[in-house]
Amino acid sequence: MKIDGKPYRTIWPAADGLSVAVIDQTRLPFAFELRRLAALDDAAEAIRTMIVRGAPLIGVTAAYGLALAMREDASDAGLDRAIETLAATRPTAINLRWALNRVAATLRPLPSQARFAHAFAEAGRIAEEDVASCRAIGAHGGHILGDLARDKGRPINVLTHCNAGWLATVDWGTALAPIYAAHDTGVPVHVFVDETRPRNQGAALTAFELNAHGVPHTVIADNAGGHLMQHGGIDACIVGSDRTTASGDVCNKIGTYLKALAARDNGVPFYAALPFSTIDWSLDDGVAEIPIEERDGREVSHLTGRLPDGGFATIEVVSPGSPVANPAFDVTPARLVTGIITERGVAEPSREGLLALYPEHRRAA
Amino acid sequence: MKIDGKPYRTIWPAADGLSVAVIDQTRLPFAFELRRLAALDDAAEAIRTMIVRGAPLIGVTAAYGLALAMREDASDAGLDRAIETLAATRPTAINLRWALNRVAATLRPLPSQARFAHAFAEAGRIAEEDVASCRAIGAHGGHILGDLARDKGRPINVLTHCNAGWLATVDWGTALAPIYAAHDTGVPVHVFVDETRPRNQGAALTAFELNAHGVPHTVIADNAGGHLMQHGGIDACIVGSDRTTASGDVCNKIGTYLKALAARDNGVPFYAALPFSTIDWSLDDGVAEIPIEERDGREVSHLTGRLPDGGFATIEVVSPGSPVANPAFDVTPARLVTGIITERGVAEPSREGLLALYPEHRRAA
Repeated sequence: MKIDGKPYRTIWPAADGLSVAVIDQTRLPFAFELRRLAALDDAAEAIRTMIVRGAPLIGVTAAYGLALAMREDASDAGLDRAIETLAATRPTAINLRWALNRVAATLRPLPSQARFAHAFAEAGRIAEEDVASCRAIGAHGGHILGDLARDKGRPINVLTHCNAGWLATVDWGTALAPIYAAHDTGVPVHVFVDETRPRNQGAALTAFELNAHGVPHTVIADNAGGHLMQHGGIDACIVGSDRTTASGDVCNKIGTYLKALAARDNGVPFYAALPFSTIDWSLDDGVAEIPIEERDGREVSHLTGRLPDGGFATIEVVSPGSPVANPAFDVTPARLVTGIITERGVAEPSREGLLALYPEHRRAA
Repeated sequence: MKIDGKPYRTIWPAADGLSVAVIDQTRLPFAFELRRLAALDDAAEAIRTMIVRGAPLIGVTAAYGLALAMREDASDAGLDRAIETLAATRPTAINLRWALNRVAATLRPLPSQARFAHAFAEAGRIAEEDVASCRAIGAHGGHILGDLARDKGRPINVLTHCNAGWLATVDWGTALAPIYAAHDTGVPVHVFVDETRPRNQGAALTAFELNAHGVPHTVIADNAGGHLMQHGGIDACIVGSDRTTASGDVCNKIGTYLKALAARDNGVPFYAALPFSTIDWSLDDGVAEIPIEERDGREVSHLTGRLPDGGFATIEVVSPGSPVANPAFDVTPARLVTGIITERGVAEPSREGLLALYPEHRRAA
């Protein structure tokens, strides 16, 4: 997507063919800075410190990190050490391990002198596949928004929660891909961006990327979406998913479920946009079966932002001495989901609906 | 209610019989400081700068402010000027005007030398009536919580939104009164406190007053309540109301409606606790008829809090250049409300239910 008219990805091979460049997301939204990753430690640090974040982008960065490690030590022992280092950066990131395993499997049969070039190319293929997947999600979801705008005969308002945009992937994003696809083909779309407490990915990242690409949008407190829906202010909701059950339950950033309830109560369609890789075919009941990460209460009690003088500060906003709880995700049951937008098309939120798009996951009963 | 074991009200006559003391709520939750109001201008400033806030407390402060004005100029012209000054401090506060009109009506027939003492006493009566009303709400709602704890056979978890506590009234509060009543009579109750973006009254004020009184509680992001309800973590919700329709629709701080939807979806009882003065008998359809205040977007984009060094700072947290919308209230339809707890008892959320408690508002058809 574009920043001030210039197309960017979140990660790309540098001109030297020996390193990669990334956008430093810890500096957003207040500064736009690039970082160069030239060695294993650079990549590991970038993932660990959230210079890069978002499951697909973490996976691609880890794949490039493994390639960079092969420049330093391409032995089997070096490969194992690099995998261990990278896997430890974000222990719960399934996509990261998937990407490491994929690259490693292609490297092991190769002589050490061939490993860097091969790994670098394989990381690039993972990146391209992610872009293609997100672009396809955008095309399928973009049609939905185009139809909606045509039906309404006016600009449409889409609500999104958290950041499932191109900053979380290599390009396009998942939940935001349909919005970019619609916007870029002339569909008049305005986005209501949930702030997304406690980490404020909506206010900081989604707002930044929509603003940079030129998509009209408005930031709101997470509390405001229900009121807007009651008054006809939202025509559709689109969110991402970190984990999707085979039955169509969607596990996404905390608060997603509340917006799905409000959408249902007001007849607003509610879509989840996600790649196949988030579907866990072993799960049926998301509320019962998906463990929810409890994160540090400091994410609620403290906020970091920009001071009037341009510096940065972390302030405390919760009454001292009060305990804080911070569940990071919730599960939206399939019954509240209108459709699941994937790279293969739009599925009914049910096992049958998903299997119709992914028949290879059918099993003999 | 108590602060570190010592009973306080939010406003009380000073020992000199000539001034009043208030808790400076602009310093909460990080400092507990009292302010003395000795003249009209002190009272007007206290309301204007939100040293005192909450409709009932604003009304009582204005009533005392009118009394203090009578010490300075007890003429009819002085009375009119004082009313004008105080009414202008918070132009939309209906309770403020009601309190001013009540005191003024009792003063006009009196000779000027009798006006100060009479007004000071009348302000005290308004305060006592507010305390009695809140205490009665607490008694009625406390029984509900007591029954719930007995049925569950374990400590119960109550979710509340915003601050409808004793800090918003003279004592006890509205939504928190049942919680204090239950806690003080030995009912084991734990409160989940919604942060309540964008002004964070939950994290700052509700958490402070529960902590000070010794009621177990946990602060959560507004996004978290639905997830907790899905997992049986909430036994009841109690919120306040700024305006209540005759049909039982409840207009309260933005985000209340989302919690009511989650409560309904999970079979959790959802109560609104409110005094008769919030009921607008002329309204039937809250969503259609109640205008919602749109407040400054800076409340969303900027936050003020405490720095590690004990100082205070205001930081910017929304991506620069992104527009912000900030609707301040929403309407929870009566169909989502389990019961309305008033000073006269618990009503069904319907015109018939409310009229059963307030038969004087029945009109011939």
